[in-house]
Amino acid sequence: MNDVRVGIVGMGLIGGSLALALKEAGWRGEIVACDPAAALDRRFADRVSGSPAAVAAECDVVVLATPVCAAAALLGEIAPACSPGTVVTDVGSTKRAFVRAAREAFTPEACAFVAPAHPIAGCEKSGVGAARADLFRARQVVLTPLDNTAESALDAVTRLWERVGAAVTRMDAEAHDALFAATSHLPHVTAYALVGALLASDYREQAIEYAAGGLRDFTRVAESDPVMWRDVCLTNRDRLLEAISDFETELKHLRRLVDAGDGAELEKMFRRARDYRRCLNAGD
Amino acid sequence: MNDVRVGIVGMGLIGGSLALALKEAGWRGEIVACDPAAALDRRFADRVSGSPAAVAAECDVVVLATPVCAAAALLGEIAPACSPGTVVTDVGSTKRAFVRAAREAFTPEACAFVAPAHPIAGCEKSGVGAARADLFRARQVVLTPLDNTAESALDAVTRLWERVGAAVTRMDAEAHDALFAATSHLPHVTAYALVGALLASDYREQAIEYAAGGLRDFTRVAESDPVMWRDVCLTNRDRLLEAISDFETELKHLRRLVDAGDGAELEKMFRRARDYRRCLNAGD
Repeated sequence: MNDVRVGIVGMGLIGGSLALALKEAGWRGEIVACDPAAALDRRFADRVSGSPAAVAAECDVVVLATPVCAAAALLGEIAPACSPGTVVTDVGSTKRAFVRAAREAFTPEACAFVAPAHPIAGCEKSGVGAARADLFRARQVVLTPLDNTAESALDAVTRLWERVGAAVTRMDAEAHDALFAATSHLPHVTAYALVGALLASDYREQAIEYAAGGLRDFTRVAESDPVMWRDVCLTNRDRLLEAISDFETELKHLRRLVDAGDGAELEKMFRRARDYRRCLNAGD
Repeated sequence: MNDVRVGIVGMGLIGGSLALALKEAGWRGEIVACDPAAALDRRFADRVSGSPAAVAAECDVVVLATPVCAAAALLGEIAPACSPGTVVTDVGSTKRAFVRAAREAFTPEACAFVAPAHPIAGCEKSGVGAARADLFRARQVVLTPLDNTAESALDAVTRLWERVGAAVTRMDAEAHDALFAATSHLPHVTAYALVGALLASDYREQAIEYAAGGLRDFTRVAESDPVMWRDVCLTNRDRLLEAISDFETELKHLRRLVDAGDGAELEKMFRRARDYRRCLNAGD
């Protein structure tokens, strides 16, 4: 099963890292890319193909490794080129939009070979220059099958990610988008708002000098790819708005405690947060 | 000038790290502590003294290395024990409350030897177990002199921090508290609110499994000492409330863009945040 030819469309952090990782893992099938970066650097692909459709025509598994909206749009472009049984997957941080686009672009028969995937390999760096062969090692990849995605397609994508060291789980696309709105999209949006508030403040210059006080840690995620995060906001709008509302409620509560000078409640809240945060580390 | 006897009251992350760092740097004066942890581990002090007042009576420089409210309260306890010229300093993240407490506890003459300090050596770990000799290396320490703090007192505290590798700057206590409300206290409070929102959500268990998506980075600061951050909230209330309001305004703006599906504006906002975030790194 190792002579599977993998096509990667979009050679950024994720696509580039997947290519590097597959090669390092000794993947026996050819790796084909349609990105100029891959043409310049043979570490990223065995062969460069002219277009996403050409990649789809030549490969057993096609990985759309672009931001979500571009990946959804590419489905229409590659659909006519796919053979029966060509497995199509992606790497997007939201899944419902990709699932919807697949249902529109593909026949029900072809949908059986669409296996959406979300590698949880967050990194604030972006672009192929930041690609690393170990990016997915010990990371989670969540598959969000369509109603009729075939087990064989899910297996093919699972093998790909397990080969580069990831642990693969499955989740409904609806559940995925709600969970990641709360655990990933909200934190990113909050970091963007924090940086925005700082940019609008009198302290934008001075903050640079004193960023060691938590600011640097807190805002690291704001360095992520703007297009990727724009697409996350656009394609997970409803769930993200809910998550923002929940956060605003919590912040208002905290603000009231600060306003009231309620030291006992503040300390209690901070203790609970610390205890929970330690659990998050334990999940490492 | 190196035979200065330094007393450290409060042997947590900051006090412990200062003790380790001074010893590693070959500080010739004695290091005296009044904390049981120091009694158990000679790396932290040459000698253990029975009380904060005893430390103040014996030392040339007294460092109150407790959370802000405790440090302010300790001033009244040590004031009667200080000799003329005993330099008193602290390590608190807010400065106005300490300055006010010093004015109340000390005579104007004694206030000339109060030199408040804030080492910007943020770390989410707390307690003496997390102490490190290199914690202050290449870090900033901000001194916030009182109106009549003597140059000699500021020099004594500057020498202490420079000896452990920090760069010392000066700032007005008012300006300090406003700056750090925006650049440090707000990020911490936001992280606490994020963790609070997650704890109140349906995802508190599942989030632990998928914390790699930005959540772990973003909430790291929520692991900080709850009492320290309680005191920050209590002693920088007005400035923190202003910073929270500015942040809420920015978040509302972002939420409107998400609600409207305004991809162009979202991308613009995220690009500006990324550019600014890169400046914060450059300050490293």
